[in-house]
Amino acid sequence: MSTSLKTPPKPSTSAAIAKADDHGAPAKMKAMVYVSPGKIELRDCPKPVIKAPGDAIVRVTQTTICGTDLHILKGDVATATPGRILGHEGVGVIDSVGSAVTAFKKGDHVLISCVSACGTCEFCRKQMYSHCTTGGWILGNSIDGCQAEYVRTPHADMSLYHIPEGANEEALVMLSDILPTGFECGTLNGKVQPGSTVAIVGSGPIGLAALLTAQFYSPARIIMIDLDDNRLETATKFGATDILNSSDGKAVAAVMKLTGDAGCDTVIEAVGIPATFELCQKLVAAGGIIANIGVHGKPASLHLESLWDRNIAITTRLVDTATIPMLFKTVAAKKIDPSLLITHRFTLAEGEKAYKTFGNAAETKALKVIITT
Amino acid sequence: MSTSLKTPPKPSTSAAIAKADDHGAPAKMKAMVYVSPGKIELRDCPKPVIKAPGDAIVRVTQTTICGTDLHILKGDVATATPGRILGHEGVGVIDSVGSAVTAFKKGDHVLISCVSACGTCEFCRKQMYSHCTTGGWILGNSIDGCQAEYVRTPHADMSLYHIPEGANEEALVMLSDILPTGFECGTLNGKVQPGSTVAIVGSGPIGLAALLTAQFYSPARIIMIDLDDNRLETATKFGATDILNSSDGKAVAAVMKLTGDAGCDTVIEAVGIPATFELCQKLVAAGGIIANIGVHGKPASLHLESLWDRNIAITTRLVDTATIPMLFKTVAAKKIDPSLLITHRFTLAEGEKAYKTFGNAAETKALKVIITT
Amino acid sequence: MSTSLKTPPKPSTSAAIAKADDHGAPAKMKAMVYVSPGKIELRDCPKPVIKAPGDAIVRVTQTTICGTDLHILKGDVATATPGRILGHEGVGVIDSVGSAVTAFKKGDHVLISCVSACGTCEFCRKQMYSHCTTGGWILGNSIDGCQAEYVRTPHADMSLYHIPEGANEEALVMLSDILPTGFECGTLNGKVQPGSTVAIVGSGPIGLAALLTAQFYSPARIIMIDLDDNRLETATKFGATDILNSSDGKAVAAVMKLTGDAGCDTVIEAVGIPATFELCQKLVAAGGIIANIGVHGKPASLHLESLWDRNIAITTRLVDTATIPMLFKTVAAKKIDPSLLITHRFTLAEGEKAYKTFGNAAETKALKVIITT
Amino acid sequence: MSTSLKTPPKPSTSAAIAKADDHGAPAKMKAMVYVSPGKIELRDCPKPVIKAPGDAIVRVTQTTICGTDLHILKGDVATATPGRILGHEGVGVIDSVGSAVTAFKKGDHVLISCVSACGTCEFCRKQMYSHCTTGGWILGNSIDGCQAEYVRTPHADMSLYHIPEGANEEALVMLSDILPTGFECGTLNGKVQPGSTVAIVGSGPIGLAALLTAQFYSPARIIMIDLDDNRLETATKFGATDILNSSDGKAVAAVMKLTGDAGCDTVIEAVGIPATFELCQKLVAAGGIIANIGVHGKPASLHLESLWDRNIAITTRLVDTATIPMLFKTVAAKKIDPSLLITHRFTLAEGEKAYKTFGNAAETKALKVIITT
Repeated sequence: MSTSLKTPPKPSTSAAIAKADDHGAPAKMKAMVYVSPGKIELRDCPKPVIKAPGDAIVRVTQTTICGTDLHILKGDVATATPGRILGHEGVGVIDSVGSAVTAFKKGDHVLISCVSACGTCEFCRKQMYSHCTTGGWILGNSIDGCQAEYVRTPHADMSLYHIPEGANEEALVMLSDILPTGFECGTLNGKVQPGSTVAIVGSGPIGLAALLTAQFYSPARIIMIDLDDNRLETATKFGATDILNSSDGKAVAAVMKLTGDAGCDTVIEAVGIPATFELCQKLVAAGGIIANIGVHGKPASLHLESLWDRNIAITTRLVDTATIPMLFKTVAAKKIDPSLLITHRFTLAEGEKAYKTFGNAAETKALKVIITT
Repeated sequence: MSTSLKTPPKPSTSAAIAKADDHGAPAKMKAMVYVSPGKIELRDCPKPVIKAPGDAIVRVTQTTICGTDLHILKGDVATATPGRILGHEGVGVIDSVGSAVTAFKKGDHVLISCVSACGTCEFCRKQMYSHCTTGGWILGNSIDGCQAEYVRTPHADMSLYHIPEGANEEALVMLSDILPTGFECGTLNGKVQPGSTVAIVGSGPIGLAALLTAQFYSPARIIMIDLDDNRLETATKFGATDILNSSDGKAVAAVMKLTGDAGCDTVIEAVGIPATFELCQKLVAAGGIIANIGVHGKPASLHLESLWDRNIAITTRLVDTATIPMLFKTVAAKKIDPSLLITHRFTLAEGEKAYKTFGNAAETKALKVIITT
Repeated sequence: MSTSLKTPPKPSTSAAIAKADDHGAPAKMKAMVYVSPGKIELRDCPKPVIKAPGDAIVRVTQTTICGTDLHILKGDVATATPGRILGHEGVGVIDSVGSAVTAFKKGDHVLISCVSACGTCEFCRKQMYSHCTTGGWILGNSIDGCQAEYVRTPHADMSLYHIPEGANEEALVMLSDILPTGFECGTLNGKVQPGSTVAIVGSGPIGLAALLTAQFYSPARIIMIDLDDNRLETATKFGATDILNSSDGKAVAAVMKLTGDAGCDTVIEAVGIPATFELCQKLVAAGGIIANIGVHGKPASLHLESLWDRNIAITTRLVDTATIPMLFKTVAAKKIDPSLLITHRFTLAEGEKAYKTFGNAAETKALKVIITT
Repeated sequence: MSTSLKTPPKPSTSAAIAKADDHGAPAKMKAMVYVSPGKIELRDCPKPVIKAPGDAIVRVTQTTICGTDLHILKGDVATATPGRILGHEGVGVIDSVGSAVTAFKKGDHVLISCVSACGTCEFCRKQMYSHCTTGGWILGNSIDGCQAEYVRTPHADMSLYHIPEGANEEALVMLSDILPTGFECGTLNGKVQPGSTVAIVGSGPIGLAALLTAQFYSPARIIMIDLDDNRLETATKFGATDILNSSDGKAVAAVMKLTGDAGCDTVIEAVGIPATFELCQKLVAAGGIIANIGVHGKPASLHLESLWDRNIAITTRLVDTATIPMLFKTVAAKKIDPSLLITHRFTLAEGEKAYKTFGNAAETKALKVIITT
């Protein structure tokens, strides 16, 4: 999950209901709580309770940390206020459900989508769940999240997914957010095709998720570009056909050489700063697509003076997780191995250490860290 | 036709062949010649001759002037050098054809596309004729054009179109460039749909061409935005449901009011400056499209900090004229009246006056001017 | 709504719940009840009550009769058993809602979709509401329907639509079934395009609904084919460019003449018998589409020996009513006038007369009849 | 290449020119000539000569035999008359080109498409090359073909493809017809998707070509169905996830069991008889596609009484070979290995033996046989 750094909080119906109806039991649980900018702590919190008929309470078994959690921790996400339990990814077991939940019952093993979707609003009807008028990315943001022993998930019928018996549940944590993000915002928006040429700028976890899912479509070439040789080496293991360290300022020339001066059919931005977005504009072929995944904090220059007649498209997208069912099938069929992204494992008691490891990826080489609760 | 202001000329096979094979007859004709920046003149020129087997010579009967011709006249188009006969639009009668031309013969009435297409290169096979490796926009640019009694048209089989008997040929001049431009770059790239909301920024000839063709798809609302009340009044006559003069700086607020704060599904940029492109970014709905038609001379700011999570697309396109056959059918079926765009008529002898009238549209209210040769 | 004549009833969760939870009040209402094959009666029935948290009770204000109701009346629809209140179309006012309904409240004016959709099952997530695993076409089929003073509508949040104040509610009854059917199964599946050529076989209410909605896309030609000159005359008033009475067996020759021997880009089957489906196969152009709307009771011959190399597509579809929101916008923008389809008006007390009038359309020239309750 | 068994010959401009203009040199070459039904012979024939400016003469180096050649040999293809040199697949070296050919010159190594395309007619502009008004499948059908030392290829710029240096030319022979056929008519028309379920009825060379190309899109399951265990064993080697011998009449039940009673998203017909086409109708899921590849000689029953409300599509297509450039890239990137299809190799002198081997595939297990000339 990526998130806007400055926009005000989306109103959450469920949260509003919470204030009025909460007669929660005094039961306690452990949770990772955002205390103040720079400070996160494992705390005892009240166990969540059903607040709306569509809610479910999930006993979380495994969760993880996202780059967005680090943004919240820096104090950059206005909707995530001090006291919030963080986390929007994970798997678990249904503990209880509201009266309107029909698809799940106590004891079911479930995957939690990072996006809550009512299913009925104008946006949900178009599968644009990210813009659900009473959902979207709210978990671990405007309502309490998954880095806890229990989490309340609104709109459970649309926002949880059954885990088949015998599945590798740890690997499925990657389907909460990072794989659908790489797939939807990068691979699908970028229209990767058999035989096509793809460049991915940024070889961090998100870029690697795009790399893994791009291979569903058998492109001829996937060129990974980054400043860090370690990450590029990982990209090679994940299936990149070419890697380019762009720190020498020669990435454009190198890509043009690799593509016979045509540029790339699909260019995926997986960093989120003006420099990388401008690099993408130089890499895209006439008729090609720039698919942005990066979370941007400021504007970039769009070189319309050279792009206006190039017949290109630029796309942006907040992950909708509409492809979770499709991704489940590809995992079951072994067309993708999500566990490749998991580099470290911790218990919930080690939550602060998990944050440090993930936050210092340059040294630890962390991609995704699993926290078992 | 719009054209890049700074890019170097595209290599033209036909032009290259021309130098080697030109044994042109001494026959003369009248033509509008770009003499030097700011100066255009009616001159006697050699009548063109077949230079490649795919060429045709067309006796031009009616032509027109494009905004791009004014750019050339300013000296802004490097590929169009002094001495060039201008013009890339028109209708006429086949005078002679090369040995490889199979679709046309002397006496056929034809429409001339502003884009020459070989039909066989990688881009032409995708109907991206604008990027044909031996064609594209070359007429009245890197080779002599249509504002003359005769014109040589390369790749005739792909670049000319039969005019059915009894058609209004003057009206069909609008199918050479301006209507396919509005249709392909604006309406089609913008995916206008029944019931959708469209904003078009710029109510000049190109914006009006988008307005006319957008109505093929029965959108609920087409909001035209411009600084000039005369142009907006014209837009109303052409089918706009709403008009907004943006000179008061309140266009965004007005559009938000009209759309219940949702913004527009399709936003079409038909001006070509940073200010209007930035306005488009504020008008587009979540999930919507900004379709750029404008010819831009400098970069614009792309506000990724507010757009990265809005699930939008931005498209650019140099017209391919791939829709000319479709447009022919809509004209024949009276689904569109291209003659609405024609405001003035001149003879070739009055060519300089035609340029003045077209160049001073603010006063003359000229949209498209017809020059009968 | 069209329906399979032989397939066994789809299991309905709501119906199942009904048996368990029904503690209905003794309040009475009037309703049109299917008594036995050939017999329908206005009867006093218990007013329906909420049975599931997602239900709403709607006080019906206007309803109508569908061709499928006549099928039920003949005893051809196994899922609709004697005692059933018929009807799956209508508008009304919310009387009460279940605890999980969030989009509607008592007093809201609503349109009732002929298809009930949970919004969360595999099919609903693809907008294939017709195949909802706990919904689909159940109203007036496997559960009681709309030809009554009150109706219980399952999955209310997904299956009802707000009617804006001041709208012509009678006209909107056409959005429950017939217009989405013509639009989705005919116009959209048939990919009608600007300038294209469309043939519609069958000029009854469904064929006319296709005719009305096909015009959203500005085809050059819409050829209506029927055996009844009255219906064809109506088609002309509704916008057909050509009409053909096929009783002389020369329809194919006539269409080939009209299309220069190319055939039609889109052919819409709106009858439902082998003869008309086979006619469609002779009318379709290479590269074209046959979009079936008709409800078929037996197989047709598919002439693969002449079609296998024609690059065509054949589509079938039970209406999903996924386009109701889009149709609402086109009605509000006056891009279509649904009231054209309404030929007769009755009260609920005149229900049996309404059935006779509708069932005898050849004489009465009835298209759609409105029943005010 | 598949071909209609009964339709009259398509008029061929090139063939027409041939009769008028042929002043061919007396040079001789060896060629496989269709003598009379049941009889094919290696004969001395005149070496072909350029007849139209767009022609090329290719010295064939390797060719192959297609199922359609066997149809011709049976006398089933009216357009292929006795005396015709057969064959529409192969690779070779340019011997000479007509005056209008610009993309090729003597000595270039080329792949020959089974479809000749002018590039400019209404159909070619839509990439529907199979229906080119002066081309389509004419090689080895209405004009002499590739099973010879030399072949004349009309519309050379559109119908030949450069072979990169160092490529495995033998393997590329599979790109003339069989791989594009499986890809375009089966995989692409069938919209195979990541995680989807595919059934292919018929595990002969065409079915296997569909199987190979379907894997470009990472479906979860590809179920191959045939009557011959040998062929099914081959399918397993080619990547099928499941194989079913349908001779026990239980294929439908087995597929339903494998798919949880849902049926298959994509069903590909690769046989061409009524029984297999009817089997496909029982295998397709609601919302799915039946993509026909088979060449049919008679009608099949279309069970509209059970399919009308299933939201399915049925497609037919004669291969356009529009994807040859894309397939070239996938071969170069090793995403597919066309040489898997090659089981036998012969010289041109052994041509009759090659026909016997290919014609008796049940015993010889031949898939594709290479003939080196």
